[in-house]
Parts: sequence; C-alpha cells; structure tokens
Amino acid sequence: MSRLESFIRRLEAQRAVLERVIVVARDVPGMALELGLGNGRTYDHLRARLAGSRPIFALDRQLAAHPGCVPDAEHLLLGEFRDTLARLARRIGRSVALVHADTGSGDEPASRAQALQLPALLDPLLVDGAVVASDQDMRPRWTALALPEGIEPGRYFIWRRSSNHSPA
Amino acid sequence: MSRLESFIRRLEAQRAVLERVIVVARDVPGMALELGLGNGRTYDHLRARLAGSRPIFALDRQLAAHPGCVPDAEHLLLGEFRDTLARLARRIGRSVALVHADTGSGDEPASRAQALQLPALLDPLLVDGAVVASDQDMRPRWTALALPEGIEPGRYFIWRRSSNHSPA
Repeated sequence: MSRLESFIRRLEAQRAVLERVIVVARDVPGMALELGLGNGRTYDHLRARLAGSRPIFALDRQLAAHPGCVPDAEHLLLGEFRDTLARLARRIGRSVALVHADTGSGDEPASRAQALQLPALLDPLLVDGAVVASDQDMRPRWTALALPEGIEPGRYFIWRRSSNHSPA
Repeated sequence: MSRLESFIRRLEAQRAVLERVIVVARDVPGMALELGLGNGRTYDHLRARLAGSRPIFALDRQLAAHPGCVPDAEHLLLGEFRDTLARLARRIGRSVALVHADTGSGDEPASRAQALQLPALLDPLLVDGAVVASDQDMRPRWTALALPEGIEPGRYFIWRRSSNHSPA
C-alpha cells in the first residue's frame, strides 16, 4: 500500500471513529475532549458534528493548529497532559462524556508510554457511560467497544466507562 | 464540510487523478515527472503503481519528503522549476509521458502565477500524447481531459499534449 493510500485509510478511520463515538455517546450528557489538538482537523470535525450540543475542550503540548481550528482561551489547555488534565479535572470535575485522543507522535515508544498514563488522568473527568476513542492503546479498565467496519484492529481503540467501573 | 472531510476529499481526488492518468498514458512510452515532491505521498503512489515501468523524476524547491519517499540522486532535482525543468530538458530531451504536478502552496496568488509559467517549461519535455495532471490551472494549450467522477471542477486539472499541438 502506498503512503498516499495508507494516509487516506488513517483519515477515513478517524472520521469513522468520530462518527461512531458521537452516536454511541449520544444519550450521555457531558462535555467533549480533544486530546492532542494537532493541526485541528479532528477538532474541527467534532465541532461541526456536535454543532454546539457539547462544549469541546482541546488539550495539547503546544499550539500547532490551523488558525481556523483554535478553540477560544477558555477551552484550550496547553502543556503536558498530566498537568492540563489535572487542571481541567479541578475546574470542571466529572463532566466529560466523549473523548477523542490522537496522541501518537513519530516517537512510538514515547507515544505508547504516554498512552499508559492517560486512563488514570482521564478517569476523574469521565461520567458513567463516557466514550473514549484513541489512536493509542491506553490499556484502561474501561470496556472495549467494537470498531467501525473496515478499520484494522490496533489502528484505533474505543472504550466505554461503565457505571459499575472501578477506577483505572 | 469539516477540515477533516475536506482533506480526505483532496487526498481521494489525488488518488483518483493518479489512477486516471496512469491509465490514460498507458500506451504512451516515456518517463514520469512528479512536480512538487512535497512530503512524497503522491510520488510513493506513482512509484508503487508504475512498478518500475517508467523512471520517475521528482522536482521540488527544497527536499521535505519522508525519508522513504526520496528518489535517488539521479532522479531528484532541487531548485526553482524554471531551472530544474530546463536542466532536465537538456538532460533527457522530449521523453516524458506522464506528469503529476502538485505545486500549490499556502500562497494562492504566488501558486497561480507560478502555474502559468509551467506549460512553457514543461512542453519541451513532453512526448506527443503525454498526459499532465495538476492541482493548479496552468492554462496550457494542451487539450483538457475530463476529471474522474466525483471530483469538483477546479480541484484538479488533466490535459493531454496532442500530436498536432502548437508549442505552449
């Protein structure tokens, strides 16, 4: 498969996963979280699809997004996830229903290691029934959900925090 | 349309256009040219699809491609197109049958102005029946061909240099 085809598949998978988690979380009240704003393309997609029905917070180490895809200052948190997620938890408490995490970088070992830290940081923010999609395997205690058809296992992950959940 | 969707459409259009020009130029012997190597994704696609049946020359102002998508030194020409295309014409003469040009940058007026210079630079390289695809309107004297289905007019252009052609 050429790099062009592989890239198209990755973006199509992102789109399919976003559509899926929006539907799965439909009846769960709460806010949305974009973990790893990056260039802002998936944030823009969430924003278009959610159409104001949920506030969206975007977190990233540094701002690198297209100017049209930058949240207002109240919804943008820059810095290390361990700091920004803890800060957000103190600010809004357990009120997030939907998370899209695109946290992989070119450095695969670092990306894998970082992903393993995320469940403990995210869990205090998640309401019962919250849905988390991620390009990295966070190995959380949440329940794994099926991927949309056509997406190879391992390319994306979807989990749901169930109400009888023991903290990650 | 979200930026994610718009980007997916652009890449799908690239793929469809590449598939189309490969088929249209099938019976025209000659080399291939990637004008604007960029990150190397479309070069990689051409390389995979042509499978060695045509040598591919890649031209760009500077090298910015993924390490796996960099041609060998003989097939890579860096610098301004007016210099590299002239140099290539002196080196290989009229022996190119397929051109993919992805020369648009963030600077639209500059991209449009540059595109208008390309037909005169490209024409001395093109064999009769050569096919040129471009993300910019070069306004050449070559014959416009139809786009693959589903691609909005203006997003891509395909031309054929016919044998009864008067120089651009």
